[in-house]
Amino acid sequence: MADPWQDCMEIGIAVARQAGEVICEALKNQISVMSKSSPVDLVTETDQKVESMIISSIREKFPTHSFIGEESVAAGAASILTDNPTWIIDPIDGTTNFVHRFPFVAVSIGFAVNKQIEFGIIYSCVEDKMYTGKKGKGAFCNGEQLKVSGQEDITKSLILTEVGYKQNPDIAKTMFSNMERLVCIPVHGILLCSSIRAVGTAAVNMCLVATGGADAYYHIGIHCWDMAAGAVIVTEAGGVVMDINGGPFDLMSRRLITASSKAIGERIAKEIQAFPCGRDDGKD
Amino acid sequence: MADPWQDCMEIGIAVARQAGEVICEALKNQISVMSKSSPVDLVTETDQKVESMIISSIREKFPTHSFIGEESVAAGAASILTDNPTWIIDPIDGTTNFVHRFPFVAVSIGFAVNKQIEFGIIYSCVEDKMYTGKKGKGAFCNGEQLKVSGQEDITKSLILTEVGYKQNPDIAKTMFSNMERLVCIPVHGILLCSSIRAVGTAAVNMCLVATGGADAYYHIGIHCWDMAAGAVIVTEAGGVVMDINGGPFDLMSRRLITASSKAIGERIAKEIQAFPCGRDDGKD
Repeated sequence: MADPWQDCMEIGIAVARQAGEVICEALKNQISVMSKSSPVDLVTETDQKVESMIISSIREKFPTHSFIGEESVAAGAASILTDNPTWIIDPIDGTTNFVHRFPFVAVSIGFAVNKQIEFGIIYSCVEDKMYTGKKGKGAFCNGEQLKVSGQEDITKSLILTEVGYKQNPDIAKTMFSNMERLVCIPVHGILLCSSIRAVGTAAVNMCLVATGGADAYYHIGIHCWDMAAGAVIVTEAGGVVMDINGGPFDLMSRRLITASSKAIGERIAKEIQAFPCGRDDGKD
Repeated sequence: MADPWQDCMEIGIAVARQAGEVICEALKNQISVMSKSSPVDLVTETDQKVESMIISSIREKFPTHSFIGEESVAAGAASILTDNPTWIIDPIDGTTNFVHRFPFVAVSIGFAVNKQIEFGIIYSCVEDKMYTGKKGKGAFCNGEQLKVSGQEDITKSLILTEVGYKQNPDIAKTMFSNMERLVCIPVHGILLCSSIRAVGTAAVNMCLVATGGADAYYHIGIHCWDMAAGAVIVTEAGGVVMDINGGPFDLMSRRLITASSKAIGERIAKEIQAFPCGRDDGKD
């Protein structure tokens, strides 16, 4: 079988686009919001509705497959990756953006078999950009093939990260001191600077690295549903994914560095300080 | 005369659109870059070419008008605002984004008479969004009227700022400690959080506040050409502009808070610490 998961991917793309349409429609209407864990970590009716829609559409076609979804996990479902074909879903990546109508929200759908990600789909619906990546087959946005920047010099790089969510002031302090270290890297005694951007969705951040528009993205506290799809898209665009300490990427670790080159990824790993965040699968 | 500067505004919109087309074309081709003041403060051939194009097109129609342009000032021209009708131009707001092909770059054109801004035009060209604001006539994006969010509670707000440019480590430290204070505001002893985003262009940041997609934007070290157009767009969308200390907005001060409400603007002023950055007109 040359392309064993092609039919799954096609269904996934259709469902992601449909989900994006529901999100865009909701953005036009009034949003009824309820609090999840903090005022910025908001969950909306749409979030839950979209996840149910995605899972039921896929389950109808593939009844034996497993699912890990952000909202299902929030509702108490387990977040354990087995060898069974598994769909890893974030119905609205960028919920805070969604609530504020900040124009970056994405549907993220990753698909793993034997714990390996086979393909990823990220639909940035306000921008109408459909990103896809399939193992060994390249990454694309609206049909156009993606390639990372290839930048190797961190002082010339544009780096993405995220700020927020953290009610713990020590963690906030570490997050900002990490950014500070990356913005001001001394080289031969001269301070050189990279630039930092934050757009508020992990999935779109990973896609921006895949397009070459940014050179790296790092995040401690990210979830598997935020990065499953993006990991294969970035890799297929020629980029790297790794752990925050520069070691191998672990989907359930809640730690991610993705970069246009191994050199930049490892340099970020060297500069930043990690903080504990717990694993998605609870195997701490 | 009901609408004394309408003809100027129409010319400005046409020129901004034309400039945006040149920028988008350049983004598709190879960019030849030269360094201005630091590796992230890059200026490109396109930047200079676009500014010349804008100024010569406008000067042909209005030969007695004055001009303040980012590239002209970088080349040694004065940056003094007089009572004469004056066009204040940033040919590519978001030059670092432009160089990296990070998809937010804008042409910003403000127009002042008797030192008052009469209208502003911001063309976010990759997104193809034309923002306009005219004193007393409202603000619009692609013909649709804009309105700020009206949010008054900073702990529920999404705040924009910028990171980068600063080779001075003390300034970087202050920038990050300001962000840290805003992200973790204690209310009745509980830490509440706002979210921070940074997209890399002052002009687009101001437009995002005008659309209601973000609740505030603050920046120390911004220039008059970055904020002249945005100030009238935000104000006409119902927002406020003020100094970093909460006092009156001063176009040449290089200090800006813009917000969806006076309450949020004043709260940001209370939380953040300023650092010296020099005025655009040298009247320090």
